[in-house]
Amino acid sequence: MMKIWESGVRGAAQAIRGGKLTPPELAASLLSRIERLDGDIQAFARTNSVDLLSQAEDMQREAASGVFRGPLHGVPIAIKDILDTAGIETCAGSPLLAGRVPERDAIAVERLRRAGALVLGKTAMTEFAAMDPAPTRNPWNQNHTPGGSSSGSAAAVAAFLAPGAVGTQTAGSIIRPAAYCGIVGLKPTYDAIDRGGVFPCAWSMDHVGPMARSVDDVAMLFEAMASTSSRVAGAAGEQPLCIGISDRYFLDHADTDTKSAIEAVMASLREAGVALIPLVLPESFEAGCDAGIITMYCEMAAAHQDSFAASRNGYGWKLQCLLDAGMQFSAVDYLRAQQVRRLAMDDLSKMLSRVDCLLTPSTPAPAPIGLDATGDWTLNLPFSSSGHPTLTVPVTLSRLGMPIGVQLVARAHGEDRLFRGGALIEKQMNFNSNPFGTH
Amino acid sequence: MMKIWESGVRGAAQAIRGGKLTPPELAASLLSRIERLDGDIQAFARTNSVDLLSQAEDMQREAASGVFRGPLHGVPIAIKDILDTAGIETCAGSPLLAGRVPERDAIAVERLRRAGALVLGKTAMTEFAAMDPAPTRNPWNQNHTPGGSSSGSAAAVAAFLAPGAVGTQTAGSIIRPAAYCGIVGLKPTYDAIDRGGVFPCAWSMDHVGPMARSVDDVAMLFEAMASTSSRVAGAAGEQPLCIGISDRYFLDHADTDTKSAIEAVMASLREAGVALIPLVLPESFEAGCDAGIITMYCEMAAAHQDSFAASRNGYGWKLQCLLDAGMQFSAVDYLRAQQVRRLAMDDLSKMLSRVDCLLTPSTPAPAPIGLDATGDWTLNLPFSSSGHPTLTVPVTLSRLGMPIGVQLVARAHGEDRLFRGGALIEKQMNFNSNPFGTH
Repeated sequence: MMKIWESGVRGAAQAIRGGKLTPPELAASLLSRIERLDGDIQAFARTNSVDLLSQAEDMQREAASGVFRGPLHGVPIAIKDILDTAGIETCAGSPLLAGRVPERDAIAVERLRRAGALVLGKTAMTEFAAMDPAPTRNPWNQNHTPGGSSSGSAAAVAAFLAPGAVGTQTAGSIIRPAAYCGIVGLKPTYDAIDRGGVFPCAWSMDHVGPMARSVDDVAMLFEAMASTSSRVAGAAGEQPLCIGISDRYFLDHADTDTKSAIEAVMASLREAGVALIPLVLPESFEAGCDAGIITMYCEMAAAHQDSFAASRNGYGWKLQCLLDAGMQFSAVDYLRAQQVRRLAMDDLSKMLSRVDCLLTPSTPAPAPIGLDATGDWTLNLPFSSSGHPTLTVPVTLSRLGMPIGVQLVARAHGEDRLFRGGALIEKQMNFNSNPFGTH
Repeated sequence: MMKIWESGVRGAAQAIRGGKLTPPELAASLLSRIERLDGDIQAFARTNSVDLLSQAEDMQREAASGVFRGPLHGVPIAIKDILDTAGIETCAGSPLLAGRVPERDAIAVERLRRAGALVLGKTAMTEFAAMDPAPTRNPWNQNHTPGGSSSGSAAAVAAFLAPGAVGTQTAGSIIRPAAYCGIVGLKPTYDAIDRGGVFPCAWSMDHVGPMARSVDDVAMLFEAMASTSSRVAGAAGEQPLCIGISDRYFLDHADTDTKSAIEAVMASLREAGVALIPLVLPESFEAGCDAGIITMYCEMAAAHQDSFAASRNGYGWKLQCLLDAGMQFSAVDYLRAQQVRRLAMDDLSKMLSRVDCLLTPSTPAPAPIGLDATGDWTLNLPFSSSGHPTLTVPVTLSRLGMPIGVQLVARAHGEDRLFRGGALIEKQMNFNSNPFGTH
């Protein structure tokens, strides 16, 4: 029989609505599992245990009298510590912000609450969403990084400590940890989920997005958080999917297991009747990536300038190096990078308009060994810079037993195409998302 | 009897539609007046004489058979040399671009043509819309500057060489020359008129706008050029206008004549039943202005970097200094300036939402003597930085006989309020817009 903590987002919501599960039971089951496992995993910076249980009781009273606040009534969701949560400490992974308790929820959190969700806790993250790692370990093998910066959100969902989580991505911070931890993650179209109340990393590249163990659960969380104008109408029709394969870049440095995984996915898509189309990446593609990196350095330096000048030693050394570098760029460097980004974005939009999705690996290789670094974001950065939506879906395990994910990319506001393509891959590849086997 | 060249935009359009004037008669009358006067005024960099007359003949044939292309059918308009004109040399006031003939019209020009307007010629401007002056003289007194950068557009309209003109403003380049030359000018809300095909000065502050001898003519040109979503519904209701007066900044350095003019306007507005409301400028106002200046320097440096490196001596010395300075700003300087601009803009929007318009002088003093400098943009820059729409209306002459204008400022997309307020001031003050008396 299925354990309570095994419920996904929609499964839990339906069980509560059907009277088969109560919000306090669900919350208690998750909290007890966190208690048992999170000493090792360290996915949570802090849980919201007291408030959570009393709010779950309220929700239970409402449910008992037939009142449901929304589609997520009574479902606890883990929130990355970069999103403000009213009354709950929010530090963006930095000791400089320790003890900071926001008065208001970030807009994405407010939207989840309005849909009936509860805040399960705040998840660990790299310092200020940069590259100094959190203590979080990968549930598939604790000697491996879970990726970053949304390390805790990915690990919490992968370890069944939360049915779903919220992360953010500026370079590769949703797609990479989700892929490394064998779960599904969505980096939506730029601005599709409001960034109000999210501590800025590099604001023209910052994206808020959901993480869960199925495409359907991710889609449900996206619908709850997206701006009204960004909600998707549902799957994009019934005609066969048309999926593009790039002529370069994405497999250039991929390891053998990752290449095999992509080939397996392509073969199974062909079997399912999908048209696989060869695409030629625009010439501006690599320059657009470089422009994104310059943008990130400059905007992070701008966000931290005063605090860094006052408290340099409160920053991890990787971020110190990054901020020192970011201060060196000229305004003209930054502005010309924006022109290059715009050109690359337009070229990429043209290419993406030819297909439903582009298919790439989510990362060049599975999560590497070691907790000092959070891995490679080179396959994710291009779309953080361009703002096109991306989805990672886990498809198989490497020979070392670490998850491998594939990344789908769609035109702006093409989340519906991602969900359709992702659900098909999920069904075809039938990945077992439980890192612990049975227990 | 009124001379043909005395016609305003709507007057000419109506006369053509009513069969009382033909497009070739109007074009010939303006070209002959330009021939006679523009050797002194130097408002035009070049006229479009050959094409203009043949196009006017086409328009006449159409009009004779009852076909009118739009509300401006057959009316020649002067275009600042920074806007691309298909087949007509466009140099943005720089010798570096001499001989450059664009293939396509700028979007604003294309919109005017679609409304039936003809291109009368390209007007002189400061080099690349910065501070090295054009040879243009002020029609009210040729020893005085006409202002800049839209020097020729303002002087052409003021000297009755054109019924209307198009200018651009990045700091004060529409409002200041229009005020110095005793005409009406509109700097619309940022982005209300598309900048496609306009040589960039500082793109986040560049605005395209119309200039003419009456508020009604300016409104008519705005309607023809504005993006569909930016067109105004007409005057903003019949209730009495509510006009704000600032507690600081705008009169701090105004000369005696300008102060008297503002007082006269206030008195006559009171007589007309207008509520005059004292407003407190937000604390962020001056910092917002500084942020606008930093933005302008950085974006101009980015726009010219390659060309400046290759051809430094092709630039005037004022622009050389500006570009050298612009290259020195860091990306962090630029980005923090954008944050300050955004705060100042939001504060200003709140203040402007309390009134229909803010009333200020258009410039601290009338056009100064001398052709080496183009005057003071400090009263216009704040709204080029914030993007709020502004209108200048001439109200009287100084003791030296130079025009004095007042500037109205409204909330974003409040052009209808500007037109209503401007028309009232125009009627109350009854300024005589002819610099030559009778001839």
